[in-house]
Amino acid sequence: MAQVLADRRDVDFVLFDQLEADALSQAEAYAEFNRKVIEMIITEARNLAVKEILPTQKDGDQIGARFNNGAVTTPDSFKRAWELLKEGEWIGTFFPPEWGGQGMPHLVSIAANDYFSAANLSLVMYVSLSSGVSKLIETFGTEKIKNLFLKKMVAGEWAGTMMLTEPEAGSDVGALTTSAKKNDDGTYSITGNKIFISGGEHDLSENIIHATLARIEGAPAGSAGISLFLVPKFWVNDDGTLGERNDVVCTGIEEKMGIHGNATAAMALGGKGKCRGYLLGEENKGMRAMFQMMNSARLHVAQTALSNASASYLNAVNYARERVQFRPADAVDKNAPPVAIINHPDVRRMLITMKAYVEGSRSLLYYVAKLIDQSHLAGDAEEEAGYEALIDFLTPICKGYVTDRSYDVTNLGLQVYGGYGYTSEYPQEQLVRDTRITMIYEGTNGIQAMDYLGRKTVMDKGKAMMALMGEIRKTFDQAKAVEALKPLVEKAEAVNNRLSEAAMQLGTTMMKGQIMNALVHSYTFMDVSGDAVMAWMLLWRASIASRQLAKGVKKKDEKFMQGQIKSAEFFINTILPLTNGKIDTIMDACYSAMEIDADSFGGK
Amino acid sequence: MAQVLADRRDVDFVLFDQLEADALSQAEAYAEFNRKVIEMIITEARNLAVKEILPTQKDGDQIGARFNNGAVTTPDSFKRAWELLKEGEWIGTFFPPEWGGQGMPHLVSIAANDYFSAANLSLVMYVSLSSGVSKLIETFGTEKIKNLFLKKMVAGEWAGTMMLTEPEAGSDVGALTTSAKKNDDGTYSITGNKIFISGGEHDLSENIIHATLARIEGAPAGSAGISLFLVPKFWVNDDGTLGERNDVVCTGIEEKMGIHGNATAAMALGGKGKCRGYLLGEENKGMRAMFQMMNSARLHVAQTALSNASASYLNAVNYARERVQFRPADAVDKNAPPVAIINHPDVRRMLITMKAYVEGSRSLLYYVAKLIDQSHLAGDAEEEAGYEALIDFLTPICKGYVTDRSYDVTNLGLQVYGGYGYTSEYPQEQLVRDTRITMIYEGTNGIQAMDYLGRKTVMDKGKAMMALMGEIRKTFDQAKAVEALKPLVEKAEAVNNRLSEAAMQLGTTMMKGQIMNALVHSYTFMDVSGDAVMAWMLLWRASIASRQLAKGVKKKDEKFMQGQIKSAEFFINTILPLTNGKIDTIMDACYSAMEIDADSFGGK
Repeated sequence: MAQVLADRRDVDFVLFDQLEADALSQAEAYAEFNRKVIEMIITEARNLAVKEILPTQKDGDQIGARFNNGAVTTPDSFKRAWELLKEGEWIGTFFPPEWGGQGMPHLVSIAANDYFSAANLSLVMYVSLSSGVSKLIETFGTEKIKNLFLKKMVAGEWAGTMMLTEPEAGSDVGALTTSAKKNDDGTYSITGNKIFISGGEHDLSENIIHATLARIEGAPAGSAGISLFLVPKFWVNDDGTLGERNDVVCTGIEEKMGIHGNATAAMALGGKGKCRGYLLGEENKGMRAMFQMMNSARLHVAQTALSNASASYLNAVNYARERVQFRPADAVDKNAPPVAIINHPDVRRMLITMKAYVEGSRSLLYYVAKLIDQSHLAGDAEEEAGYEALIDFLTPICKGYVTDRSYDVTNLGLQVYGGYGYTSEYPQEQLVRDTRITMIYEGTNGIQAMDYLGRKTVMDKGKAMMALMGEIRKTFDQAKAVEALKPLVEKAEAVNNRLSEAAMQLGTTMMKGQIMNALVHSYTFMDVSGDAVMAWMLLWRASIASRQLAKGVKKKDEKFMQGQIKSAEFFINTILPLTNGKIDTIMDACYSAMEIDADSFGGK
Repeated sequence: MAQVLADRRDVDFVLFDQLEADALSQAEAYAEFNRKVIEMIITEARNLAVKEILPTQKDGDQIGARFNNGAVTTPDSFKRAWELLKEGEWIGTFFPPEWGGQGMPHLVSIAANDYFSAANLSLVMYVSLSSGVSKLIETFGTEKIKNLFLKKMVAGEWAGTMMLTEPEAGSDVGALTTSAKKNDDGTYSITGNKIFISGGEHDLSENIIHATLARIEGAPAGSAGISLFLVPKFWVNDDGTLGERNDVVCTGIEEKMGIHGNATAAMALGGKGKCRGYLLGEENKGMRAMFQMMNSARLHVAQTALSNASASYLNAVNYARERVQFRPADAVDKNAPPVAIINHPDVRRMLITMKAYVEGSRSLLYYVAKLIDQSHLAGDAEEEAGYEALIDFLTPICKGYVTDRSYDVTNLGLQVYGGYGYTSEYPQEQLVRDTRITMIYEGTNGIQAMDYLGRKTVMDKGKAMMALMGEIRKTFDQAKAVEALKPLVEKAEAVNNRLSEAAMQLGTTMMKGQIMNALVHSYTFMDVSGDAVMAWMLLWRASIASRQLAKGVKKKDEKFMQGQIKSAEFFINTILPLTNGKIDTIMDACYSAMEIDADSFGGK
């Protein structure tokens, strides 16, 4: 039967051939995660995703989350799927067993999530928000708070949300006005309004714990005066039982382009009664905690985008094998029978484009997941800092670039279906709509580009970028040993050299105080960096595949391995020339976008 | 008040400054269309669009067309809007007055439609299909048929559809199986099933005339055996009155990503009774007629895509002027107040990108509309053929490139709004969903690319492309006379030279019989050609604006004219380098997409 969601052969290739996931089991913390166990985990996740979660995808879109008088109901099929995720302990995969987690490496967890997200993004969002809040509690919570909340959340008994955004404080979180006042018992009374709260209200769990940003009365303006609170829907008594309903109320949910199954809630805190919260971490240090959560959320968003792209790709490949239209364009016989569209040149162009981005993105995101594991296993602080710098540097590329390209991929996936792709009879158009949000939430991709150029690239005098280039060089040196790959490596190296020059030029522009002129090229710079990283990942894959083919592989793996080389060839010969063009636009230093008078945009 | 839908200053600029629409009135056929009259027409269209049609847009999306037992109902507001379009004689704008049309130049008609489509694509589709079928009748109908149908259709009393697609004959129209059998009275009995029929059934008009492709029994297989029929919903008696219900029945409508207000119908012909039709044109010559309609439909689709992009752009500009978030990135004072987001570099990048494509596309499509007028006014057959060759050559670029870029523009327009753009509270996400279909219907953009390279570029030994290059050269010569534009023109010229080389290389590849290797680059070739045409149009605009600024313009026009130069600068310095990269990919002749084994795509 045709595969769906994520190509198992590809997932295994990245896990074992490229990233040597089983080697992590040499560390005591991951000792039980040998290859056999990892394979079993992926098989279980895949079965659950394909058999139980995928059938809920359309319900999420067509029934959606529904609001009625403060309550939000999700489709019935979501409740069943949530229970199965709970039973399978899929909610706290990477949390330590002491809190009920599986203690799984992130590298294994991301592969499982790759299947779950591809099967139903709206549903998985409830899970991942819970997991994000749990992580915050694990890091910043006191023992009391951990004991009160963590086990319940990791087990999926309770869910979580991030309450950041307000109507006038969207991307600019520091502008928020929700306020907090300390009570005599050490809790805080919270008052304010939040919007765009994913999973802000629902009926999947008996309680919802809202990680809430607010300003304590008298605290400094801006980001420096923001604190983080845990605001439960039902108050949690000291013995862990549920107490009174807290005054944190959903006042409505958004109608939106996609992810209909996930409630995007407007929330009122303390509007009609007593809304209490626990301080999480220190007063006025909320932004730091928020950024920790945000960074892992950004990586997670990138993964969900990839997963949707992967699902769209496999659907398109399967469809293209079955759909018969037109005889081949080069058929000599005018009466030649029509063929499956996978044989037509432009369909092949679309499919190989999708393939290259899905594969490159999967490798990148799994690689970063492994970096997270490596940072946890690091022998000393310096080693740990090295991994973290790489993770920080790659995060905006993962979020900004991978979500952009994944959206492109889902659009190609729709296009392969032609008119059918536009109908709701097939999943392709929903994947487009659902994926579109990933370019916006957890910081729009424009914000990612600013973060990437304005902070990550220039921090520590460009140390992180140089470290990345060092990693890339290692792969290239290995790839060059394969004669057939040499010309490809050389092209990729040339792009990397020019990328470094572009970074230098933009850095200099900023140092001269021309911040805006540098930032106006930040998106292109992020784009170019993403292309370079894709080329790296695809060459890495091609290099492994070439070696394995040279050694001899099983018959069933041959086509897969050959396909790895073709993806790299295609990307480097067909996409990287555009990357060169993009670098030209940075080097040419055209500032028309800044120079144009605001009134010249017209419309007045 | 802020402008919406289409910037009137820009529409006027293209009509009068760039394309000299008023000069058409020197021809007798268009004598009454002097500048004042044209301006009045546009003002009326704009008022109707903004005040009456735009308010129906959301109804179309949220109420949509609804199917019940063979009948389709449209939202109530559609019925009112349809009546207003009828009353204003907007349905047959370019038809001769003898049939009830306004006898308007296409150049004027497209500007009016620019407003209507931007206001509600779903509604306008009912109009444009009627207009397309009317055109078929005007061209191919006998006097009897013209008298029976044309006035009613031009007046909007009856609507029309194109019934081409069948479940197993989507893009490959020639594979259709609907059959026709001649009756004793000269009519034909039609039997078969059609799908994806836009406006196939609705309640806006008292009758619907279906232009239907079918194969007469015994006719040759493939395209050579296809005939065109007019199949009315209600039979039209010889005296023009309506007769019995014909057995052409809607069996359901599609749920789809967008254009919910336009019914996409599955139709059964002759399944339960007598389905009669009139032959239109000659037996077995249906494809020729279909192509006439298809070609003008393709141009129309491009225009609707542009119109949506234009609406999205103006919404984004207006929003960016009002939405306040973040202090400027280069603010020295950390407590500087936040500013409107139109001041932020990456928002400006998005806006100027949108601006350049909207302006370039508007110029291109209006230019082609003028070519149509010029072909009608041509003094002799040779002159007419010259215009028609240019129209034919540019049609796939209009359809393929403009719809692609318009979709990109609507996506940027959503992105400018951030999270709000993803909600249905604002029109941006609907514009994305509605625009997406334009890349598919009337021939997917992949089909356009094949047509462009495989037929249009190589026909008459590349004569059309050379003619186009000649036209471009005229503009460039004028632009070069403006000192400040010289470097921009030189860059654009360099791209055009390389484009010609790419055309040559692809042509040679085809002549060597490597059809598939040429076609696998057809999409990139169409893309590159579109970029070149955009650069041409934007330089044309900048050249006019520069001259006018040098002469001195009214204060209120100054910013607009400066903006023209900025669009050209931006496009040529920031987009054309990517075009060069795309040309590199063609010249590099990488065929990985063809070489990859079908099994290497994985998923099995």
